[in-house]
Amino acid sequence: MRPIQIQAPYLLFLGDEERPTYVKTAQGLLDWQADKCLGQYRLSPQTVDLGLTDLSIAEAKASGIRSLLIGTAQIGGGIPENWMPVLKEALNAGLDIVAGLHTRLSSVSELVELAKQSGAQLLDLREPPKDIPIGSGKKRTGMRLLTVGTDCALGKKYTALSLAKTMKAHTMNATFRATGQTGIMIAGEGIAIDAVVTDFISGAAELMSPNNSSDHWDVIEGQGAIYHPGYGSVSHGLLVGSQPDAFVVCTEAKRTHISGWPDYPLPSINEVIEHTITIGKLTNPNIRCVGISANTQSLSDDERAGYLKELSATHNMPCVDPFITGCDAIIKEIKEQFS
Amino acid sequence: MRPIQIQAPYLLFLGDEERPTYVKTAQGLLDWQADKCLGQYRLSPQTVDLGLTDLSIAEAKASGIRSLLIGTAQIGGGIPENWMPVLKEALNAGLDIVAGLHTRLSSVSELVELAKQSGAQLLDLREPPKDIPIGSGKKRTGMRLLTVGTDCALGKKYTALSLAKTMKAHTMNATFRATGQTGIMIAGEGIAIDAVVTDFISGAAELMSPNNSSDHWDVIEGQGAIYHPGYGSVSHGLLVGSQPDAFVVCTEAKRTHISGWPDYPLPSINEVIEHTITIGKLTNPNIRCVGISANTQSLSDDERAGYLKELSATHNMPCVDPFITGCDAIIKEIKEQFS
Repeated sequence: MRPIQIQAPYLLFLGDEERPTYVKTAQGLLDWQADKCLGQYRLSPQTVDLGLTDLSIAEAKASGIRSLLIGTAQIGGGIPENWMPVLKEALNAGLDIVAGLHTRLSSVSELVELAKQSGAQLLDLREPPKDIPIGSGKKRTGMRLLTVGTDCALGKKYTALSLAKTMKAHTMNATFRATGQTGIMIAGEGIAIDAVVTDFISGAAELMSPNNSSDHWDVIEGQGAIYHPGYGSVSHGLLVGSQPDAFVVCTEAKRTHISGWPDYPLPSINEVIEHTITIGKLTNPNIRCVGISANTQSLSDDERAGYLKELSATHNMPCVDPFITGCDAIIKEIKEQFS
Repeated sequence: MRPIQIQAPYLLFLGDEERPTYVKTAQGLLDWQADKCLGQYRLSPQTVDLGLTDLSIAEAKASGIRSLLIGTAQIGGGIPENWMPVLKEALNAGLDIVAGLHTRLSSVSELVELAKQSGAQLLDLREPPKDIPIGSGKKRTGMRLLTVGTDCALGKKYTALSLAKTMKAHTMNATFRATGQTGIMIAGEGIAIDAVVTDFISGAAELMSPNNSSDHWDVIEGQGAIYHPGYGSVSHGLLVGSQPDAFVVCTEAKRTHISGWPDYPLPSINEVIEHTITIGKLTNPNIRCVGISANTQSLSDDERAGYLKELSATHNMPCVDPFITGCDAIIKEIKEQFS
């Protein structure tokens, strides 16, 4: 797979976004690549503050920054008019612009023209490669773990990053595999799997975790949720093409419904485990669930320990909140099961 | 959904294809819209002969033909060089060109230019609409039937067309809904569901069978196969978005493996029924299987009756070969179950 060359260090562009949940791309980058994030650009004093230094384009350029990363997303995925002066100024200064928007930077002729003049790059992270094959279903060497979810936006990316990091800390041979825009910014390569034409989605997943040495783990960022009425097919194709040996179910304490789809109650963890195995065993008959990752931000410290302990007892497997407890318990389980 | 206006009558273009299975688009059109097919265009005497009159472009024009339909597909879906003189001649004569190729006619500037000059249309049937929403999962009025398969290319389209025709013969209110290029040519509208970006596939399926009167049946052409390692996600999204009340499993006698994927044995009919219900009940808890449609072209007349009878007894539901026995038995079952 062709890596996407994102030139560090970065200036994180936050637009005029005042809602923290809408700057999660920038937040994710700061969580996992803090060394590369030298500043933030905010269009107003009310814009979310990530605690980075506010830099102008000229200051960013002077401090050696090479890329402006769009760290927020508008509903609909477009490029608002009030972003344009900053984007143009950045290109004129020779900074690359990196975005994972539905609207491609390369579809805006003004930006294309300025980039050509200064030699800066426009990097559209949602643009899939041109040469994706149809899924072959052929077994690949090496081990794979996929994070799956009871819903979207509850920690599949964070869990995968945390698992990969913990594996490395345990001297295991592991690579995080990014499937969404934020993950791709963090990893510097990957395919935005939800932007792939459906005929090619399992082929794209195959491309993303190629043959590797027998002790190597690809830790693959999940997308969507298999019981999601809108995005379930993304999860299906990623699962079939990834051929995971192991998966971790991600959920959120107290979430009762699919977020944004109030007619759809959250499926149970057991339903997700069973359905994931039914689908996943097509391309990997040995697929198994090795743990649960719960986002417990809605629980008090007192509640958390009891909640995780009960989940663990009910499902007879390790349950963690990677943000609080780390992932050691799941890695220990993987080492035992795949020794 | 915006219908695709295909101007009849048609000239069927067969290229220089000598293998009957590679002209199945033209054959399907001839099976279901014979009245509109006035001639064929073959590049060599060895090209498959559908039994239509061979017409030159000038003869076609003189006989009132308005569209040249590409009735064959190349591996890879491109436009071979030796087709170009005929396509250009057709455009110069003012004939529309209709194709469901991966390579879009509108991406070939020479064709676009000639079409502009003569006022002819280039119709790319695989190009999905621009405004597909994310799947909502909201229940729609009216009834829906989906054909599903143990594999690809064994009769899902033929079965759906045959079921819709038989429903109408029984004075039921029914519409065939096309999801692939041949089906779209036959129906004159539809969405090539496998060409939709995965995030939008269940939304596309919702768009295709909108609210309707309570006694109306949409009979939806299935695509792919839920246990297919390459195309399963297409089947998944179509199933979730279609919200079928009923489905018919299509299979082929004596097929033992997924065609082209020799490592994958054909799933059993029971596995396909169970998996389709598990996925389908997300958006329609009342989904049920109402029959089996078997392609028995590999069986002798003597074998066929016993085969269908045994299938029917094993699964306790009507089993037909629509090409031989018709679909009356399944329509009778539907009338009983949904009266």
